[in-house]
Amino acid sequence: MNIEMIRAAAQRIEGHARRTPLLTSPFLDEIAGRRVWVKAECLQHTGSFKFRGGYSALSALPAEQRAKGVIAFSSGNHAQGVALAAKMHGTSAVIIMPADAPQLKIDNTRSLGAEVVLYDRATEDRDEIGDRLSAERGLTLIKPFDEPQVIAGQGTIGLEIAQDAKAHGIKDADVITCCGGGGLTSGIALALEAEAPTLRVRPAEPEGFDDVARSLHSGELKRNAALSGNICDAIITPQAGDLTWPIMQRLCGAGLTVSEDEALRAMGLAFLRLKIVAEPGGAVALAAALFRKDQIEGSDVIVTISGGNVDPAMFTRALDTL
Amino acid sequence: MNIEMIRAAAQRIEGHARRTPLLTSPFLDEIAGRRVWVKAECLQHTGSFKFRGGYSALSALPAEQRAKGVIAFSSGNHAQGVALAAKMHGTSAVIIMPADAPQLKIDNTRSLGAEVVLYDRATEDRDEIGDRLSAERGLTLIKPFDEPQVIAGQGTIGLEIAQDAKAHGIKDADVITCCGGGGLTSGIALALEAEAPTLRVRPAEPEGFDDVARSLHSGELKRNAALSGNICDAIITPQAGDLTWPIMQRLCGAGLTVSEDEALRAMGLAFLRLKIVAEPGGAVALAAALFRKDQIEGSDVIVTISGGNVDPAMFTRALDTL
Repeated sequence: MNIEMIRAAAQRIEGHARRTPLLTSPFLDEIAGRRVWVKAECLQHTGSFKFRGGYSALSALPAEQRAKGVIAFSSGNHAQGVALAAKMHGTSAVIIMPADAPQLKIDNTRSLGAEVVLYDRATEDRDEIGDRLSAERGLTLIKPFDEPQVIAGQGTIGLEIAQDAKAHGIKDADVITCCGGGGLTSGIALALEAEAPTLRVRPAEPEGFDDVARSLHSGELKRNAALSGNICDAIITPQAGDLTWPIMQRLCGAGLTVSEDEALRAMGLAFLRLKIVAEPGGAVALAAALFRKDQIEGSDVIVTISGGNVDPAMFTRALDTL
Repeated sequence: MNIEMIRAAAQRIEGHARRTPLLTSPFLDEIAGRRVWVKAECLQHTGSFKFRGGYSALSALPAEQRAKGVIAFSSGNHAQGVALAAKMHGTSAVIIMPADAPQLKIDNTRSLGAEVVLYDRATEDRDEIGDRLSAERGLTLIKPFDEPQVIAGQGTIGLEIAQDAKAHGIKDADVITCCGGGGLTSGIALALEAEAPTLRVRPAEPEGFDDVARSLHSGELKRNAALSGNICDAIITPQAGDLTWPIMQRLCGAGLTVSEDEALRAMGLAFLRLKIVAEPGGAVALAAALFRKDQIEGSDVIVTISGGNVDPAMFTRALDTL
């Protein structure tokens, strides 16, 4: 896993993934006490950064292998990213999703041409289902984060942040990432190490699901005690990956955590001040920038809004915070 | 008023206005029956395209004149655009707003550093107030649409659409614009006449406030019978301007009209499929593309989302259409 893989992924996704804008608002700057730069990956195809990793992985496969189809496990955003990437490559995708995933994400994944296989989180073993389907059909598994070409795809966001930071004269800043398994965080960290080494990556997580923050603090890989019960479902994973954790350990600053209410307030402010739609898990980095300002240094802070796939009912809760 | 003024405005605003993205969604394509390209001007500074015209006008003033300050009449988006443009130029802005304008727009305009003067639409003459303040303080009036440098600023959107259309291979398409006084529409029409003459500009308006559509149909400048009573408040004006109307008459195709409910549904779909926030008046062009498909020709359609300054309560109404 190295910077050359990220640069190669950037070449493969060019013209296919969107180069998302870095947005600002004087109103957010005032709340945060510093300039806030928002990398709006909710504007990416399929509404989240996951499309980059999916496209990067699909495009890196040998053509013959790709033609047999791919398979992925996902509660939603990775599913949609892989589904659209497969469609763009003219191949098929099987997505194994928990039956209790948000209906919008299930519907979207099917509409993007994927075959969705639902399983019961409590009684069924998704790995067993996946192994069986892969063996039967010769499908290639696209892991959601602990996969080099997926990390490389997410890392292209870091290349864009480095370019934009240079253009805007941002020399010294925390770059706060919404962090689940660490694919986005480790990819951006690798890109910035090479292209903008004075920018420090710091993962943001929901309170109570802060395995990465605890891992970074202790120096040992920690697990989350629970895997459900938080509105930031998109970024909750058991623990960081075998590939992502060493990268984060080497390159990341201390983790930040925010409450569900703070994530909702950040969603509301992104609506009001940036005119973009963030999902709860996609808003934790902005929430950290706005509501943990005494834990952040520098005159600028850069945050990812990693996704915007949110049901209207949940978005209404965010509007109610305004 | 000519293309060279638009090109000059583009040079002045470069690095100050945002180059907004052209967004797409396969889900919108399916509803519209053709590819839909969305110029997301809601992501512009101050949440609407009006910043471009404001910045263009301010930057075109002689420095000495600009230093005395500017004045504008606006129910909201032009107000915010001029206020921020004045702040960026280090000068002052007086904004005369109706007392019943959305509170969010009044608050934002003040927060952007402008002096807001409220008047009663029923009992006070805003022109008289404006004339008095201008005379007293030597302020320069920045008209909302019937002003060459404002039209030139809005026309920069047309230059960007022409570039992006070329990059995406779009050769023949309607370009539907949200149309009030015609500054945006005429500016884009002039830009496309020079840079992409196979793209046809077509104004979209709210039903019952379709003065431009009726003007284009009859060949004579028509007025709106009413000036309030529609949620698309941002694009309701008495009639097109002395400068904008001849340009639209010469260059625009037939107008399109949509209902309030259709504007709300387009806002909901922009939330769901593009992850952006549109205000009612900013969604009429998208609504026309989605719900008037038998009045549109070609395999592609390009629309502006002209603004996203909407109160949470109104946005909740849009979410309720999903």
